[in-house]
Amino acid sequence: MDASTIRTLTADRDLPRLAAAVRRLGSSATTDLIAQLPATEAAVVFRLLPKTVSVDVFDRLDRGTRSDLITALGTTELTTIFADLDPEDQSRLVDELPAGVATKLLSAVAPADLDAVMAVAGYDRNSIARRMSPTAVVAWADDTVAEVADRIRAADVDLADVRLLPVLTADRTLIGTLDALALLRCDPHAPVTSAMDPLETVTHTSEDQETAARAALRDGVPVLPVCDSENRLVGIVPIDDAARIIAEADEADFALSGGTQPLYRRYLPTPILTIARTRIVWLLVLAVSAVLTVHVLEIFESTLAEVVALALFIPLLTGIGGNTGSQAATTVTRALAMDEVGLRDFARVAAKEFTTGLTLGVLLAVPAFAIASPLYGLDIGTIIGLTLIVNCPIAALVGGSIPLAAKACRVDPAVVSTPFISTFCDASGLLVYFTIAITIMGL
Amino acid sequence: MDASTIRTLTADRDLPRLAAAVRRLGSSATTDLIAQLPATEAAVVFRLLPKTVSVDVFDRLDRGTRSDLITALGTTELTTIFADLDPEDQSRLVDELPAGVATKLLSAVAPADLDAVMAVAGYDRNSIARRMSPTAVVAWADDTVAEVADRIRAADVDLADVRLLPVLTADRTLIGTLDALALLRCDPHAPVTSAMDPLETVTHTSEDQETAARAALRDGVPVLPVCDSENRLVGIVPIDDAARIIAEADEADFALSGGTQPLYRRYLPTPILTIARTRIVWLLVLAVSAVLTVHVLEIFESTLAEVVALALFIPLLTGIGGNTGSQAATTVTRALAMDEVGLRDFARVAAKEFTTGLTLGVLLAVPAFAIASPLYGLDIGTIIGLTLIVNCPIAALVGGSIPLAAKACRVDPAVVSTPFISTFCDASGLLVYFTIAITIMGL
Repeated sequence: MDASTIRTLTADRDLPRLAAAVRRLGSSATTDLIAQLPATEAAVVFRLLPKTVSVDVFDRLDRGTRSDLITALGTTELTTIFADLDPEDQSRLVDELPAGVATKLLSAVAPADLDAVMAVAGYDRNSIARRMSPTAVVAWADDTVAEVADRIRAADVDLADVRLLPVLTADRTLIGTLDALALLRCDPHAPVTSAMDPLETVTHTSEDQETAARAALRDGVPVLPVCDSENRLVGIVPIDDAARIIAEADEADFALSGGTQPLYRRYLPTPILTIARTRIVWLLVLAVSAVLTVHVLEIFESTLAEVVALALFIPLLTGIGGNTGSQAATTVTRALAMDEVGLRDFARVAAKEFTTGLTLGVLLAVPAFAIASPLYGLDIGTIIGLTLIVNCPIAALVGGSIPLAAKACRVDPAVVSTPFISTFCDASGLLVYFTIAITIMGL
Repeated sequence: MDASTIRTLTADRDLPRLAAAVRRLGSSATTDLIAQLPATEAAVVFRLLPKTVSVDVFDRLDRGTRSDLITALGTTELTTIFADLDPEDQSRLVDELPAGVATKLLSAVAPADLDAVMAVAGYDRNSIARRMSPTAVVAWADDTVAEVADRIRAADVDLADVRLLPVLTADRTLIGTLDALALLRCDPHAPVTSAMDPLETVTHTSEDQETAARAALRDGVPVLPVCDSENRLVGIVPIDDAARIIAEADEADFALSGGTQPLYRRYLPTPILTIARTRIVWLLVLAVSAVLTVHVLEIFESTLAEVVALALFIPLLTGIGGNTGSQAATTVTRALAMDEVGLRDFARVAAKEFTTGLTLGVLLAVPAFAIASPLYGLDIGTIIGLTLIVNCPIAALVGGSIPLAAKACRVDPAVVSTPFISTFCDASGLLVYFTIAITIMGL
């Protein structure tokens, strides 16, 4: 395999064949190949290496090539090549980057290019790895308290990044954390491990960034260390960055639950057309799916012509159904975001929401029947009451299931819930309503 | 004025007369009076003193009475007496507690009683004062670095509470903050003021807790010092407490935007009836207000009888109207929570939402007309298109205004928005729809 073959395969974006080819070469041959290729192609080849080989190759490369490689991993061209891969291909072709290489990338790349480089490095868009900063100061397991204190004094870094230091063994395995303030209280000659907090949980690069950030803030951890799958430290997430992750996630959830996309900028200075753009997509989705309600009503057009009074309760009944559905969706979406429920709980959530919906349906049906019967007749009162009893459990069941279904399809639950639920509940509510009406009135 | 008069006035809950009476006494007479009263009555009298007098009286009291007073301020009985006052009366009768007294209260009261005591102390339910912790360690303006470091070493407190120390003058005025880690980097003999960060903003006890907590997290401040109106330190809010305040506020906003009350507990273990209770209130409010739509449709019952096809588009049009309204409400509610807009911006928000709504109405009307006309006739197509153009700006205007109106009435915008908007938009949408239909069809 020579450089021109590599170039052709890269130009053709035939990454599967390229991956198969480079995986047959040994570390030494690969190092030579990478050294003679132009930086971008070298970077493509490098990212396709198996994890065990890539750390070895990276170590063998000379300083210059290594630095070219790191810069190349941040180029737009390379980002585009890997962005074209779908996630399954990416995880099949691109192995986890060894912690040593990832750490060097983190500290070598300009902050503005970090997100692009981490994408090429194979970290998922929602993973905590995409929000890592370079580790400012570490404590080694054989350090004394005084040695670590000196290292903090000497380091020209933001204090926020050193409030909690990762404690590492010689091979960068994370074994604990050290609150930098605890150094003030310790004997300078004591081993750093005596002041260390043992590790309770390790946050891995692949973890969902919102989940990881929420856990860090809940526990009041000032700096969150992030490790690869072998518990070797890769980078850190200071608490203010964790707070930012949560603020963005909450802004998005809140906006989406209100049927709009998040603005991610201040409201007043944002131009009208930008605001309209965040809203129009949803309104169109809603409008297209609301066409379903038109079709459902068309089925019952003759029933409506016979008993026009039935039309009076359409907004009331679809409103209650839609609200019951969105209440269920809101509760389950939040529980998902808080990591309280998962896909394994599908049956429990469904049963819970169905029963809750039935309870609500009965609680609403009683006053509805009592008020509507004297005003619009016993028939209409019964129809409205029965519709509530039948439709509320359906709406709650669907509303509670959709966020879980979305999660299973790897879609943000907040994105799909609102328009889908209101449309579904409107249509199902109308079907239930008219079916009950036809049966009771004998139409 | 003698002890028995005080007891009668306290028993009668006639606080205005009691306040007027005790305010006529001097510091010395008040101190004597408080010393002879049983602790609960003494505490009532104490809370009714003007600020200038209460600090003086507190200083004159002997140790035992002082400690009884502090304990009494936490009793249920006293809390009930002051809880009965409406907020205006409270702020009129009960003066701001001097920082020195508030600080002693904070550190003397058990954490479980803190909220009750802070209520009696006159702090508003949503104020940051209600979430303060006692200050663990302070730095005095004339300290050296070594003196402060020794104080941290000697203090038996959680490290999280001393990451940032308030720097105070002799009269407890906050003049800056000191990052405790900066001590590691300083010459031990240097004055502490040389390592101090000057004060940019001061958080006062009366500030809204959500606003204060968001600002602290955004700025990555590890500990937030809280001062009285004279910038004297009262207490602190560590960052993990600030994170908890925001998490609770977000949970509430998110739940309310989905038309349900927040659970504030884990979803799966919560009993069905508890969940149903968080939802039924909203559904009933919605149902009662949805009766409005029934009345609107009754007005147009004869029109519906003539052209049954008009009923087909009721869910579609009310759905789009309701969604346009809730989009506007969501954006404005978030901007309010983020302190980006206030009541002063009412006209700008209204104008912005009206224009956005008009833009959205036109964007939706064009495809709606193009699709509906060939299927249901030119009349229906025109009616649907015009309804969207007229109703969307109304819905957006109302949706954007309601959160501001709620704020003006000191009601949580998230509480009132959803049901009010969906009902209003349904009713207004139906009115617009049938008015346009009658005009165009000449019914």
